[in-house]
Amino acid sequence: MAPATPHTSPIDFERIFHPKRIAIVGVSQEGLGFGAGIFVSLRLIGFEGEIFLVNPKGGDLNGEPIHRSVEEIPRAIDFAIIAVAARAVPEVLEACRLKGAAGAEIFSSGFKELGTAEGIALEEEIVRVAARGIRVIGPNCFGIYCPRSGLTVLPGPDLSRETGPVAFSSQSGGMAVDFANAGKSVGLKFSKVVSFGNGCDLRETELLDYFRDDPETGLVAMYIEGIRDGDAFFESLRRTTARKPVIVNKGGLSAAGRRAVQSHTASMGGSREIWQSILRQANAVQVGDMGEMVQACLAFSLLPRRTYHNITVLGGGGALGVAAADLAESFGVQIPAFEPDLAGRIDELLPKPGSSPGNPVDVANPFVPPKTLKAIMRLAAGDPRIDLQIFTSLLHHYKNMAMLTGRPIKAVTPYLELADDIHEVAAETGKPIVVILSNPKSGPDHLDVVDMFVDARRAFIERGIPVFAELRDALRAIGHLNAYYERKS
Amino acid sequence: MAPATPHTSPIDFERIFHPKRIAIVGVSQEGLGFGAGIFVSLRLIGFEGEIFLVNPKGGDLNGEPIHRSVEEIPRAIDFAIIAVAARAVPEVLEACRLKGAAGAEIFSSGFKELGTAEGIALEEEIVRVAARGIRVIGPNCFGIYCPRSGLTVLPGPDLSRETGPVAFSSQSGGMAVDFANAGKSVGLKFSKVVSFGNGCDLRETELLDYFRDDPETGLVAMYIEGIRDGDAFFESLRRTTARKPVIVNKGGLSAAGRRAVQSHTASMGGSREIWQSILRQANAVQVGDMGEMVQACLAFSLLPRRTYHNITVLGGGGALGVAAADLAESFGVQIPAFEPDLAGRIDELLPKPGSSPGNPVDVANPFVPPKTLKAIMRLAAGDPRIDLQIFTSLLHHYKNMAMLTGRPIKAVTPYLELADDIHEVAAETGKPIVVILSNPKSGPDHLDVVDMFVDARRAFIERGIPVFAELRDALRAIGHLNAYYERKS
Repeated sequence: MAPATPHTSPIDFERIFHPKRIAIVGVSQEGLGFGAGIFVSLRLIGFEGEIFLVNPKGGDLNGEPIHRSVEEIPRAIDFAIIAVAARAVPEVLEACRLKGAAGAEIFSSGFKELGTAEGIALEEEIVRVAARGIRVIGPNCFGIYCPRSGLTVLPGPDLSRETGPVAFSSQSGGMAVDFANAGKSVGLKFSKVVSFGNGCDLRETELLDYFRDDPETGLVAMYIEGIRDGDAFFESLRRTTARKPVIVNKGGLSAAGRRAVQSHTASMGGSREIWQSILRQANAVQVGDMGEMVQACLAFSLLPRRTYHNITVLGGGGALGVAAADLAESFGVQIPAFEPDLAGRIDELLPKPGSSPGNPVDVANPFVPPKTLKAIMRLAAGDPRIDLQIFTSLLHHYKNMAMLTGRPIKAVTPYLELADDIHEVAAETGKPIVVILSNPKSGPDHLDVVDMFVDARRAFIERGIPVFAELRDALRAIGHLNAYYERKS
Repeated sequence: MAPATPHTSPIDFERIFHPKRIAIVGVSQEGLGFGAGIFVSLRLIGFEGEIFLVNPKGGDLNGEPIHRSVEEIPRAIDFAIIAVAARAVPEVLEACRLKGAAGAEIFSSGFKELGTAEGIALEEEIVRVAARGIRVIGPNCFGIYCPRSGLTVLPGPDLSRETGPVAFSSQSGGMAVDFANAGKSVGLKFSKVVSFGNGCDLRETELLDYFRDDPETGLVAMYIEGIRDGDAFFESLRRTTARKPVIVNKGGLSAAGRRAVQSHTASMGGSREIWQSILRQANAVQVGDMGEMVQACLAFSLLPRRTYHNITVLGGGGALGVAAADLAESFGVQIPAFEPDLAGRIDELLPKPGSSPGNPVDVANPFVPPKTLKAIMRLAAGDPRIDLQIFTSLLHHYKNMAMLTGRPIKAVTPYLELADDIHEVAAETGKPIVVILSNPKSGPDHLDVVDMFVDARRAFIERGIPVFAELRDALRAIGHLNAYYERKS
């Protein structure tokens, strides 16, 4: 047999990401396997294209007929989703190619990641079929989520249909699904999310090349376990970061992690030092885990693209001033003290005693009305050094107000007014305002507080205001922004 | 005037933490000032002792008569809560002393933290009154929370009345309140929480001395900005860590942070290196922020007191195996591969394909029934090297099950069964099981998932199972446990 070689023909990403007709091969009528699961997910998310189901047993699924073979599908297809047993994959893939599919995602596992001769041979077989003219995502992956077309990962029936700037390429399927979900929760909007698993054909470099030119993609996030071709990848990375930010989470940087990578996606790793140095040289933003990646994407996608070196911190909470100062220093951001005149004017607005008008501004009392906070933020933005403001909310304290007045917490907490005011000040001053929404009251007898926070976050997000759970998260994300735009310029 | 000197008479902590009769001096009938706020909080949390209110204007508050002066209170008091203007504090404190109070917490600010001559002089005046026989918490603090007596911090009407092993001494009032709330949310139970603010009389060392001997206190957490007497503190710290863990969050370790400390509680700081070295010598556990402190307290209070070097990780999620391996190495924990025989027996229980029976065990499918997980955990505990197991849940995926079946998520998610099973396996094998409960679906259209997670966490907590939001948090906390018990032995 000829050795498996990577595909070199042009890639019809348009038909892969926005297919009009797809086949799902390997749907079972019993239970909810991958095939049936993705079919139901596609219907629930509202994929508008035609879907052809295939299983040798025939029959129907939720009233949709099941074809006995790919050959029986009456139309040409753009894209295939394959969820059959590993041994059957090459033949099914070839049939999909003959049906005109530009690409296929293969959920099936049982290939190179097993480390067995059979698994490796089967994966090489897939590569050979792919080289004849059908591009492959996978195997051992959860596929593509594309909000515009309604293609979704497995499982992804409840992901958003809103399109946005974030592209995510992930070697891990679980990470792709979790990232898409977590992103939706905090207001990230996606252009495309791709879980490519073993990545026997399309993987990090091909996707990065595509995202670089994709007008829908404003920034790229990547979860990498190992790369196929270091030179090609770093060349693509350098070219991409020259145009848009690329945020990289490299898993498996420890010795134990490298061994785990080997059994997860059969990729070769690389040492922590090498990766840090190379990513830095390429001006990629390196993050340590998914949480940090979500936060970095939030900052890169919602804040105007520049550096933010001098900030204000306004609000209250446990030792805010001290924590803010410690964190700012860690992440290379300044919280410059206001001039006495400005501090004096802010002081006039603050409740007494216990408040502090310097920068950070400690409002001391959690019930300071939004209009006062608005006036303070307006004044603070007048300091010409200030690039950005951070407001740390204390909304959980309104639970006490609710208890004391006997009214529902949503009725006594002025979060909608606050969201409007913050949006207005940011727009008017041209200096973005970031909100920290941290809820220490999240147990079973604080469900009303939990619900209120979800709605408050929604209110800020809808107004384009970035929300972080912790001041540390926000400052670290801003640090990443600064590092990227400094090196880029 | 004689210089202010610290108090040396014995401290009647019993009457301070469990007062039978207290005075609240400085309640206003209008609005909700500190005095009225703490009164209502004490009633709501169910403080059973007698409360005497004081305000020169008299009148009543919610039907409770207001005395015009401390002198008018008809009985001797054990403890006073003072929330009057700074200038009036010394006189009120003296009146409380004469009424027999063993101690007082002073919420009022406007003292040394202002840096003004007047503020400093007023604080020295307080110290002089205290030296005559009334111990002071504060000023510029939020007071004491003691679940057993029902004394609560400001604001703290909704804190738990359950008593437990965690004592917390905090220089920051906001931190004390947030920590008590966050702790309640994740299942921490407290013996005493003390916000001492400026700490003009009782502060870190006196409290540590008390907590060391307090039979209700099993571990001590501290938020420190600066200390009064380094030698006395470190001697007390060494003596305490020889008996129980002490977890220290030192704020203001950066240059900017040290300046912020100065204006927050007027304490002198100290460099990062000095603190790290001294805390390590004293075998205190140093943490970087409140979240890490909560997590460390969770591990120290819920896990049997020993080291845990070899663990299993079981579950699924984004690149679990790789992340677990990277994190374990960072925190000095091993995830040893199972022997082939054990791996084989576990493999027989796992769904195929995509699962992995080594350690970590990747169950691949989020809908693996609890009884299967139970059987796997039982087998894994049979490995004699294993000290502890970590189960990373994927409960958010049941949202898809709920969507597909049209049933409520709580009805389709077997979290109660899972909690019972985990509790049973841990009890039976004598090897604790820690649960990771991470929810990427937390936006407005996933309120059902958010509610289910709150209830699932409650179910685990009620069974004494430690729950962390992230694998990183759990492994870091276990790393702290290991460091403490290794150095202690």
